Amino acid sequence: MYTTETQIRVHYALTDQMGVVYHGHYAQFYEIGRTEAFRMLGYTYKDIEAMGIIMPVVDMHNRFLRPAKYDDLLTVKTTLRELPGNHKIVFHSELYNEADELLSTGTTTLYFMDARKMARIDMPERLKEAVRKYFHADQL
Amino acid sequence: MYTTETQIRVHYALTDQMGVVYHGHYAQFYEIGRTEAFRMLGYTYKDIEAMGIIMPVVDMHNRFLRPAKYDDLLTVKTTLRELPGNHKIVFHSELYNEADELLSTGTTTLYFMDARKMARIDMPERLKEAVRKYFHADQL
Amino acid sequence: MYTTETQIRVHYALTDQMGVVYHGHYAQFYEIGRTEAFRMLGYTYKDIEAMGIIMPVVDMHNRFLRPAKYDDLLTVKTTLRELPGNHKIVFHSELYNEADELLSTGTTTLYFMDARKMARIDMPERLKEAVRKYFHADQL
Amino acid sequence: MYTTETQIRVHYALTDQMGVVYHGHYAQFYEIGRTEAFRMLGYTYKDIEAMGIIMPVVDMHNRFLRPAKYDDLLTVKTTLRELPGNHKIVFHSELYNEADELLSTGTTTLYFMDARKMARIDMPERLKEAVRKYFHADQL
Repeated sequence: MYTTETQIRVHYALTDQMGVVYHGHYAQFYEIGRTEAFRMLGYTYKDIEAMGIIMPVVDMHNRFLRPAKYDDLLTVKTTLRELPGNHKIVFHSELYNEADELLSTGTTTLYFMDARKMARIDMPERLKEAVRKYFHADQL
Repeated sequence: MYTTETQIRVHYALTDQMGVVYHGHYAQFYEIGRTEAFRMLGYTYKDIEAMGIIMPVVDMHNRFLRPAKYDDLLTVKTTLRELPGNHKIVFHSELYNEADELLSTGTTTLYFMDARKMARIDMPERLKEAVRKYFHADQL
Repeated sequence: MYTTETQIRVHYALTDQMGVVYHGHYAQFYEIGRTEAFRMLGYTYKDIEAMGIIMPVVDMHNRFLRPAKYDDLLTVKTTLRELPGNHKIVFHSELYNEADELLSTGTTTLYFMDARKMARIDMPERLKEAVRKYFHADQL
Repeated sequence: MYTTETQIRVHYALTDQMGVVYHGHYAQFYEIGRTEAFRMLGYTYKDIEAMGIIMPVVDMHNRFLRPAKYDDLLTVKTTLRELPGNHKIVFHSELYNEADELLSTGTTTLYFMDARKMARIDMPERLKEAVRKYFHADQL
């Protein structure tokens, strides 16, 4: 299992007239979490795109438990529960506020794709190598 | 079953550097679809808020099948498969492009809540009445 | 002078917790107005990009007079007061609500640029031709 | 003069298909800068709203000099050149990338308003006091 935590301050643009963060914007919190998860592996998502690979989101399931609010300092916890074996990678995200209340959970599935051919490809070996050390031998 | 269709033109702000609509923005397409579904019942969501009711999204599941692109004239098809019996309402959304290709499907669950008490309430009877006629007797 | 009008319905995602449209989102209304202004000339902005031309915004001045609100059916009036002579094009935008109140005015300057060379170029002759007929001889 | 600096990481949602940050999103960078400028004075904007005061943006002028890009770690420099004397406050913003290139400049004017009466009010004395020490006696 590979887990990272990132902090995000909620700015005004993300709120809606219900006085909370608009539900559609949680995708951005999870995106920021995934980006930092990659960065901590030594590979930025920018690097991945520079390799000619894009990672479109193909599935996202969000559960909204408590509202995130303006100026909240959120913690997004991003977890890779399984080592990706092929073109698919699944991230689990949890969003907490400063009172450590769980605000939402998200499961996001992305594909690794060759940007030029627009075809699925396996997770690059270098990246897989970087993740592998976080998984016990019996999970590989 | 109650189904409505709404058209949405994709503007530049919704695209990302993959050259497609950012996955997090599909929530907005579904939101527009739901709003128009209410309007065609004779009740705007604005009216509902004016009654002191808010409708937070508590769950959203999106599957992204094909990318929506800049300047696409999308059709969002919004369906209520079941008449809400209590505080919960579930919308099914399908997004199509002009070539009638299915781009995404979304299932969004919202609660009816008393805005002042922040407590769940049943769907207002007037609104339920407006929806009821779209359902066969055996579905009620 | 070349003027077009476009209608835009304000959806929930555009509001903020002040209960009005977030000021940063007006840029999107003007963008939609410019896109429709091009379309009515017979050239979509998508066509322009397909010609290898991009049009970055280099300057934008917005005055916010009255708030736009959720579910407002806005009219954005987009005007080209002068025929562009070179690489620069200036749009004047006015935003009205259904009560015909002026909500904001915006002046947006864009450049025509060769997307590959990232160098300024003159407005394409075909596009200039399409605009020219809206200007009196003494303005040319 | 009162100046603060804040860092902002550009996430994917802010990019558009030109491969740069969408021009309308710069307003969010300036907003984040202003919020942190207030926080460093010991008053969050959230506190200000809790006092029953809202601060709508009434004028914004942005000049876009160089594009901000995905994953850029931006620095927004927020400056109050003059001590607000009445209901109006003007912020000057400058956006820099990691190579210390100036990407954009923005001038944003906001009003202090009584949220309930929706009437302009003077900058709260406590807040003015907090800012005053950054200005020389001859500027007061």
